[in-house]
Amino acid sequence: MNDYKTIGILGGMGPMATYDLGIKIVECTKAGKDQDNVPVIADCNTRIADRTAAILSGGQDPRPEMIKSAKRLEAAGADFLIMPCNTAHYFYDDICDALSIPMIHMPKETASRLKERGIKKAGVLATDGTCQSGIYKKSLGEAGIEDIYPSEEVQKIVMSLIYDYVKAGNMDFSSLDIDSIVDEMKGKGAEILILGCTELPIAFDIIGETALPTIDPTKELAKAAVLAAGAEIV
Amino acid sequence: MNDYKTIGILGGMGPMATYDLGIKIVECTKAGKDQDNVPVIADCNTRIADRTAAILSGGQDPRPEMIKSAKRLEAAGADFLIMPCNTAHYFYDDICDALSIPMIHMPKETASRLKERGIKKAGVLATDGTCQSGIYKKSLGEAGIEDIYPSEEVQKIVMSLIYDYVKAGNMDFSSLDIDSIVDEMKGKGAEILILGCTELPIAFDIIGETALPTIDPTKELAKAAVLAAGAEIV
Repeated sequence: MNDYKTIGILGGMGPMATYDLGIKIVECTKAGKDQDNVPVIADCNTRIADRTAAILSGGQDPRPEMIKSAKRLEAAGADFLIMPCNTAHYFYDDICDALSIPMIHMPKETASRLKERGIKKAGVLATDGTCQSGIYKKSLGEAGIEDIYPSEEVQKIVMSLIYDYVKAGNMDFSSLDIDSIVDEMKGKGAEILILGCTELPIAFDIIGETALPTIDPTKELAKAAVLAAGAEIV
Repeated sequence: MNDYKTIGILGGMGPMATYDLGIKIVECTKAGKDQDNVPVIADCNTRIADRTAAILSGGQDPRPEMIKSAKRLEAAGADFLIMPCNTAHYFYDDICDALSIPMIHMPKETASRLKERGIKKAGVLATDGTCQSGIYKKSLGEAGIEDIYPSEEVQKIVMSLIYDYVKAGNMDFSSLDIDSIVDEMKGKGAEILILGCTELPIAFDIIGETALPTIDPTKELAKAAVLAAGAEIV
């Protein structure tokens, strides 16, 4: 029987990203059989209100349900929490205040990895909500990394890629000018692209190699969680 | 806020199958946004001992950890449970005895769907453990369906497909005689193939159309759970 710590996933934001994080945890764990993997409790709470609407347009407060889930996971034996939603980290402090176990901060974890790699300027690809909430600006700034965003026109292509394509299940991106995203960010001095929305790594896996390297915050979160649980990563 | 019942996934058997079931739940739910999905709590308990070893060769008893997980899910608010492991259903009664919430029985659910389709003879493709434990024999028998198994020689191909290929991440099956599995089962009168091991639907998705239709018990379990939670399926 393994003696790894138990990871709690504060999920449901969205449901697919919750299970995708679980798969990334399995994929990055050095394991030869079921019992070598880290124990995980995932609360896919689909009663959590939309985060972007709450931040940008006064929509229903998602915090009460997020706190319910966090406490449920703590009571069920989770040793620490992780959240597979970039935008949800806007509410990180409020959730932590309600808990006596820690939570790994996905954007800060991503910023630490970039700092280790010597990155000075990172391009942030994310929803309008994540961009405008300043989540990555704060985490990158604390790591001494400059955050770069697309122009209004190019941001529209990013939003279309997320909403009209990946979220809608349409994976033929040939009519979208993906190169203009990468080229603009490169022109602004970005050394790497942060795929700061859980839909984007799915799209970029299909798009293939681009003129800039990319980093997937969910994958970095999975690795950090496996290590924090006491297991080895591959 | 949705008022669906909460599904509890007694998981970790194995970890990948746990998140695969989660994805199948999302895919079969009629939902336009995160909040239209059913709430799920998944306990990916990697401390549960190997089920096949316990059944066939006196290995460590998996029931104490299975019961811990089941009670943890009940305490966390699950209204009913599901288990994404065919072999684990050998211990179904012992788990239910420890619970005051119900659990949907995957092989029985699969047998019910086959009965509705008028199937009289079903081929069972599964691990030696699942076959020898008689899990599908019992569930199919209760539905008036005859269970058909591969010969010893062909069963070796099934086991190789599961262990040497899918579990090992090798998806090039060209050197395996998959046709001999299907042809033998068809020759024995099987009208459909039950993909009674969570690795097999992954393999058959890649193999494509065969001379017999197939049924994926995990997918049937996902649909049954979404309906039991009060949501609609697509």
